[in-house]
Amino acid sequence: MTDPISAPAAETSYPIGSRNRVKRLHERAKYDRASVWSVLDSAMLCHVAYVIDGQPYCTPTIHWRDGDRLYWHGSSASRMLRALAHGVPVCLTVSHLDGLVLARTGFNHSANYRSAMCFGTAALVEDPAEKAAALEALIDRYYPDRAAMLRPISAQEMKATSVIAMTIEEAAMKTRAKGVADDEEDLGHPVWAAVIPVAQVIGAAEPCPRGATDTPRAASLDAYRPGRRLDEAFLETQKLWEGER
Amino acid sequence: MTDPISAPAAETSYPIGSRNRVKRLHERAKYDRASVWSVLDSAMLCHVAYVIDGQPYCTPTIHWRDGDRLYWHGSSASRMLRALAHGVPVCLTVSHLDGLVLARTGFNHSANYRSAMCFGTAALVEDPAEKAAALEALIDRYYPDRAAMLRPISAQEMKATSVIAMTIEEAAMKTRAKGVADDEEDLGHPVWAAVIPVAQVIGAAEPCPRGATDTPRAASLDAYRPGRRLDEAFLETQKLWEGER
Repeated sequence: MTDPISAPAAETSYPIGSRNRVKRLHERAKYDRASVWSVLDSAMLCHVAYVIDGQPYCTPTIHWRDGDRLYWHGSSASRMLRALAHGVPVCLTVSHLDGLVLARTGFNHSANYRSAMCFGTAALVEDPAEKAAALEALIDRYYPDRAAMLRPISAQEMKATSVIAMTIEEAAMKTRAKGVADDEEDLGHPVWAAVIPVAQVIGAAEPCPRGATDTPRAASLDAYRPGRRLDEAFLETQKLWEGER
Repeated sequence: MTDPISAPAAETSYPIGSRNRVKRLHERAKYDRASVWSVLDSAMLCHVAYVIDGQPYCTPTIHWRDGDRLYWHGSSASRMLRALAHGVPVCLTVSHLDGLVLARTGFNHSANYRSAMCFGTAALVEDPAEKAAALEALIDRYYPDRAAMLRPISAQEMKATSVIAMTIEEAAMKTRAKGVADDEEDLGHPVWAAVIPVAQVIGAAEPCPRGATDTPRAASLDAYRPGRRLDEAFLETQKLWEGER
């Protein structure tokens, strides 16, 4: 776990290098940690790009963040985990689709979105204490205080699970969050133009029908109430988790 | 555009090779076109992995599909488009998060999801007729019949836009769509266990306040009614578009 005293401050920026410099629509780009982290922390699902023998792979997985360290996990038998074990370059990206932008020209059609691309060197977490802490963080970061409520992890489960980590070396956040951007001379063209917003929304929980079903939901899961935006719930649980350490 | 007569049938499978064979939880994997296409067609946002000088990149973008051909586009100036112009291996992945799975053990925590990983060789679409048809398809595939309603694309806009295509050579669809999968001996552990479903939902359209605002919304956009699941709307518009050719 990151030492809170040495953790980088949210208002500081990542260095800008050849990998993360945004070339296209650079006015949409930000490089400060707070902006990058807000995109990462609003999602559970990320995509990791890595290379095996020249072939790129784009694998979806669950990530979590502790300061500048990004973690993800998987079966010790998986292709991704074996490929990433020994220190290889990766790009981990999180994206949110926020709206469909229907303009008066095909060229001005767009999407509202938030994305963060993070570059670093992935490696297996081999230290048993860091690995155990990371797996506890995976639970508590999404579901505050929950790790201590669970049946403890067994030695066999620990062995079957691999944890990968990377320190973010470079990163960029990019966003579009505005209305239709048609040019003045196209505004009279007679076609319906609009933004159709979209959001990930939480549904009603479906309790497991097996075993003891009389255990109430912990109040620490209140973030996941039905009808709420999922990105806001994830952001809230990350902050709760950070505040409790 | 794919010749409908020579287009591959949805019930046929992609060949299984070293890139797409699912090693981990292979019982969750499918290789038939209908399964892969259902994931691709339910989303606008994809992630493309590619390599520049050994460094992997994971770029979010908008994709569209015509038979076994996947298309995406961008500014002719972008890093991705310049890197992919001349025939390089890529992996294009689409993922949907469908639910959070809270089990009685950390090990059995999971997520419900659908994902499709597609492998192929990306190349710039250089033929002017294929490029124009692809950009028209980008509009009409998401917004049926809309391309003809727009101010036509200018020569300058066409020049500023690059279209990339790849034929899907190998692909795999993977899904988890079930309840909490705790082991029998853990069912008595007293902690709330449940699936929390999540979905991307369409909001109320925000018409552009500029220009002529009295143009009604075309009935061909009915798929995007507020409150509806976005994945279902995208699947419906793809089928409408395919049916009209």
